[in-house]
Amino acid sequence: MKQLLCLLFGLGLAGRLVAQDIDLPAPQKTGGMPMMEALAKRSTSRAFDSKDLSNQQLSSLLWASFGINRPDGRRTAPSANNQQATDIYVLLRGGAYVYDAKANKLHSVLAEDVRSLGATQAFATNAPVTLIFVADLSKMGNGSEDSKKNMANINVGYISQNAYLFCASEGLATGARASVDRKPLGQKLNLRPEQLIILAQSVGYPRP
Amino acid sequence: MKQLLCLLFGLGLAGRLVAQDIDLPAPQKTGGMPMMEALAKRSTSRAFDSKDLSNQQLSSLLWASFGINRPDGRRTAPSANNQQATDIYVLLRGGAYVYDAKANKLHSVLAEDVRSLGATQAFATNAPVTLIFVADLSKMGNGSEDSKKNMANINVGYISQNAYLFCASEGLATGARASVDRKPLGQKLNLRPEQLIILAQSVGYPRP
Repeated sequence: MKQLLCLLFGLGLAGRLVAQDIDLPAPQKTGGMPMMEALAKRSTSRAFDSKDLSNQQLSSLLWASFGINRPDGRRTAPSANNQQATDIYVLLRGGAYVYDAKANKLHSVLAEDVRSLGATQAFATNAPVTLIFVADLSKMGNGSEDSKKNMANINVGYISQNAYLFCASEGLATGARASVDRKPLGQKLNLRPEQLIILAQSVGYPRP
Repeated sequence: MKQLLCLLFGLGLAGRLVAQDIDLPAPQKTGGMPMMEALAKRSTSRAFDSKDLSNQQLSSLLWASFGINRPDGRRTAPSANNQQATDIYVLLRGGAYVYDAKANKLHSVLAEDVRSLGATQAFATNAPVTLIFVADLSKMGNGSEDSKKNMANINVGYISQNAYLFCASEGLATGARASVDRKPLGQKLNLRPEQLIILAQSVGYPRP
């Protein structure tokens, strides 16, 4: 009933079906593989099993990628002038969400499986999780459009590498790509014009 | 004597003083802090002690950042189509070098301390090591200039995050910045027009 109300509420507000937000369990902030061994195992994979990740794995993946690691709200990845202008959208079988690092939540954006828009190549649609790294140029101050775009791309490289190393440490497969169906995906995610899709990154268990 | 010959040879060839190349010891590829704890400690520092790093630390830092981690020559950081179009220049008290991951060497570029050109802010010149991440657009295929620049920036984010996490794991201080004296530094490093300085990153012991 609560889910139904939530769906109707979302539909009424924005003309789109949203689902319930997901409260994530606390991320794992200790343990994992020794750093140099995770670097030695870092690789790009294009072959995923379709098995879902647990919410615990999702929480730790997102915290590793761009979670808050200090009391002042600073993050696991740097950003120019600490603007934190990157949002991570999370495409799952059950819908699309945006990661709220402070609340440790996934806010529902759309109750629809749009993972296939996160790739222009078929291999990626089998992965249970697709991260979409979105830069919000409106949070990036007064520099030139060019310098903002440069920093937006660098910022995403930082975050995506954290995801790579988390996956190496946890025995998960991952692969990032710039080839994304930007226009239809941006419409589905209700992005504003100053929000740019920079990269997509699939995460899942390796295909046996 | 060998060093003198090397200096004269370099001077004769390129009209610039170069020093001897540095053969690096094998990098450490095991151990380090558990992955999640390194992520928890990842931070940007602007306060460095001037104490030099050992060649062993330099070797491990560079391998972690963008070393070869597989027999087929692939690296610790991904790059679009495995183009490996980023070079790491290393500015030390004794001169400027470029990292050769395959040979595990620092090739001398200039026998001069140009660390101060790796920053437009004074704090950074105290650090013993400044990494300069340089994209070589000539290695990036036939895409548009814009898409090459986007990927060049993303590539450097990947590499720079590896350096951040290595430093977190090893108790070293580090901080990256886009503010670099690009034109004079590019001239000193003898960069070609298609080589773009993307970021600088200082590394050293934390200031006590």
